[in-house]
Amino acid sequence: MPSRYEDVWSLSVRRGFLWPAADLYGGFAGFYDYGHLGAPMKRRWEDVWLETFLGLDENYRLIDPTIALPEAPLKASGHVEHFTDLLVRCPKCKETHRADHLLEEVTHEAHEGLTATEADAKIRELKVRCPKCKGELGPSQPFNMMFPLAVGPLGTDRAYLRPETAQGAYLNFRREFEALRRRLPIGLAVIGRCFRNEISPRQGTYRMREFLQAELQIFFDPATWNDAVPFDAIAAKGIQVAFAADKAKGAFETHAATDLVARGLPKFYVCHLAVVQDFYLRTLGIPPDRFRFAELDEKERAFYNKVHFDIEVKQDSLGGFKEIGGVHYRTDHDLLGHQTASRERLEVTVDGRKVLPHVLELSFGIDRNLWALLDLGYATGERQVLRLPPRIAPVPAAVFPLLSKAGLPERARALWSDLRRRVPVSYDEAGSIGKRYARMDEVGTPFCVTVDHQTLTDGTVTIRERDSTEQKRLAESTVAGMLGDLLGGTRRFADLPAAGSTI
Amino acid sequence: MPSRYEDVWSLSVRRGFLWPAADLYGGFAGFYDYGHLGAPMKRRWEDVWLETFLGLDENYRLIDPTIALPEAPLKASGHVEHFTDLLVRCPKCKETHRADHLLEEVTHEAHEGLTATEADAKIRELKVRCPKCKGELGPSQPFNMMFPLAVGPLGTDRAYLRPETAQGAYLNFRREFEALRRRLPIGLAVIGRCFRNEISPRQGTYRMREFLQAELQIFFDPATWNDAVPFDAIAAKGIQVAFAADKAKGAFETHAATDLVARGLPKFYVCHLAVVQDFYLRTLGIPPDRFRFAELDEKERAFYNKVHFDIEVKQDSLGGFKEIGGVHYRTDHDLLGHQTASRERLEVTVDGRKVLPHVLELSFGIDRNLWALLDLGYATGERQVLRLPPRIAPVPAAVFPLLSKAGLPERARALWSDLRRRVPVSYDEAGSIGKRYARMDEVGTPFCVTVDHQTLTDGTVTIRERDSTEQKRLAESTVAGMLGDLLGGTRRFADLPAAGSTI
Repeated sequence: MPSRYEDVWSLSVRRGFLWPAADLYGGFAGFYDYGHLGAPMKRRWEDVWLETFLGLDENYRLIDPTIALPEAPLKASGHVEHFTDLLVRCPKCKETHRADHLLEEVTHEAHEGLTATEADAKIRELKVRCPKCKGELGPSQPFNMMFPLAVGPLGTDRAYLRPETAQGAYLNFRREFEALRRRLPIGLAVIGRCFRNEISPRQGTYRMREFLQAELQIFFDPATWNDAVPFDAIAAKGIQVAFAADKAKGAFETHAATDLVARGLPKFYVCHLAVVQDFYLRTLGIPPDRFRFAELDEKERAFYNKVHFDIEVKQDSLGGFKEIGGVHYRTDHDLLGHQTASRERLEVTVDGRKVLPHVLELSFGIDRNLWALLDLGYATGERQVLRLPPRIAPVPAAVFPLLSKAGLPERARALWSDLRRRVPVSYDEAGSIGKRYARMDEVGTPFCVTVDHQTLTDGTVTIRERDSTEQKRLAESTVAGMLGDLLGGTRRFADLPAAGSTI
Repeated sequence: MPSRYEDVWSLSVRRGFLWPAADLYGGFAGFYDYGHLGAPMKRRWEDVWLETFLGLDENYRLIDPTIALPEAPLKASGHVEHFTDLLVRCPKCKETHRADHLLEEVTHEAHEGLTATEADAKIRELKVRCPKCKGELGPSQPFNMMFPLAVGPLGTDRAYLRPETAQGAYLNFRREFEALRRRLPIGLAVIGRCFRNEISPRQGTYRMREFLQAELQIFFDPATWNDAVPFDAIAAKGIQVAFAADKAKGAFETHAATDLVARGLPKFYVCHLAVVQDFYLRTLGIPPDRFRFAELDEKERAFYNKVHFDIEVKQDSLGGFKEIGGVHYRTDHDLLGHQTASRERLEVTVDGRKVLPHVLELSFGIDRNLWALLDLGYATGERQVLRLPPRIAPVPAAVFPLLSKAGLPERARALWSDLRRRVPVSYDEAGSIGKRYARMDEVGTPFCVTVDHQTLTDGTVTIRERDSTEQKRLAESTVAGMLGDLLGGTRRFADLPAAGSTI
């Protein structure tokens, strides 16, 4: 891990974003708990995600299916047979490894999609040995990453914990199509926990065994959607893309949306790349040079994905561009599979035609998104400050008395009591004012409001912006509205009158 | 099930609140999915719960620990050994039953806490036979309700899915005590899924195998907290309580808080009964005659709970008062158990004294809470209307054009586009206006806004209240603010000027 990883991890653990689960008992590899800052940050990220993606169409809705799924649909989806990684054991020291990771460490190239025979041949050819004891490795074997559950008192009903949220949306398609009054497209969003029994969850928080996904499955009519999406509005927009052949170079090129369509991507697909890019660059404020879509070629992508670009953010803590989500055109693979296996008709009638909807999946790893925001936001120079987007910051504002005497705490507490009914705002009077600003800077609080001696005479307080450290004065009675505007993005701190004058 | 259950269930399934999971494949007993109305209703309930209970103290925070837990802490907590129900098999038809439920059906009394030997003796004494085939039943056996997981490539690390969220809070206590700067009390709230392999999940949605809990664990200093809570402010308040000896009668008595303290309940405990009661009666608007706390006697409550009252709501669909949560004084049982088993010190220093904090747990079954709101809210008389609290309603407002012509749809859509940036509001122009009002009534939408011919001339629209069906006119430009006030509870529809005049 680069030392940058250690810096971000240290902040995360010290302040209460994310830390190892059950560390009281020596830890639990691949499992992490969100602390009192991580949990609200996550909930705020989810709110912004829901607003953005459900806002695309009134027919896109949040649902919440179960985490456990019976075996039959996961057989139909191919997960029971194919959701495997290649496991290699060292017969000498008993350590287990992922075959593709062993090969990647030696060759610095991706080795996804190999069969066991191919992997074994490569391992022999490259003379790869056990990284732990240097012993000769055993043969590769497919290992299913789903956690099985035995349901019922006799344990006879086999089930699994979902490895992604998508199947829950597919299983609900028919009911929702009816409840939402038989229109296409419909979108079913799911936010929740997923589980994968990763062979080696040793890459810190990047590969977790229990993790959080936010996914939107859009079911559409393939005959008409390309003409229905508002492509003209984004035709000239630049999309930051690395095609499969180029992505190892670690950069990207900006292509106009029309060029991507000319290269063969469907209009509906490019429209959604534009939406996702806006979410990252505009809503979350990711620097443009750190965002790209990275194409997966036929060998890398799942066989049912016709088009697949990963969403990647360049993070120094993880050594470069890393996947935090994906945009997947899954065709009719999923509904066809469930229609065949369940013998229930999933074809629907739209405008007098029978349609088996195709699916476009927008998939986001929430843990990876939050980590990326911590990585990009955390500055460890002279001032330790976490530049989180105001709408994502777990503590959007804090109220301080300048000193803990002379009536200032009482006045500050009164203001805080009033504010917290509208904005999650914290109160602090311990230590010097400088230390208190520093504490809030480190957890990403965008605005701090301070009650000082002048407050007692003229009813004004100071408001300090995290990034510029600039302070301005405003009337106490206008603080709530001002914070609402600043946090909601309808007003910019820089546009307020300069210090010295009162707003 | 009473027919009332069928009514509520039919609404739930038809409109998209809650329905059986994986029904495409013949269902999955004990598992239910939230549809496009249930999921946002749940999220809105959670927001109100968080605001209420985290609002009690700035040191009460939301965290989010993992669902899977390693075996060691669950051994320490007693779950591996004691989290069991008594399972009885019929050797003839192979059906499985819960021993206490079999006895309850015959005697109409609760039979919790029996040993296997006691249950077998009772079954013989009462001549209970298999309800399915009338065969003679086999012996009772303890059956652990936790779902085990085999973690890691060799499946050697035994873990379980949590049967409640509490342990995750206890495991995080030490880290959070540090991160929150070493003060007591601290409160750790967890909202999330729990799993229990129920022997017979046949009571509809009341006993689910995957379910949602919202729990707040308050860690406090037992030497000082009774004097620190604001008991005087609620001393005269009436608390609706059924003591263990009386609760089978199905009613309750209202006792002043001071009387409950005189009967031996700790002041801190009574204070929190008052808070919980306010949450139900004031915030959620449950009719007072349908709410009570029901005491569990020594035999019914877990051995580590010193005081335990269930939170109960009387629901016609479930045949009377049913548990939807509980208030549990767990003493130092949990931290002591983890301190002993982990050999890590959980005692903390507060005001120069060493303290092993005690725990007060406020526990809420989210699925059961949502069901109770559907049960109490759904009227099936002449008008089918779902009277949900405005803050919980999944669709807080809707916008309609009176007719789908004459420029009304365009004007209504423009208003809707503007509103939906601030409030989750739906749009509908299909069918007669009466049908559209009826559709929204049935999903609990508190306010509908209609654009009509007069809108085109004077810029006013009508706003209709769900419960009274009364309509008033107001200027289009004031709708957003008015909806915010009405939904936030800072303004009442009844206080607006009567129809005829424009607001």
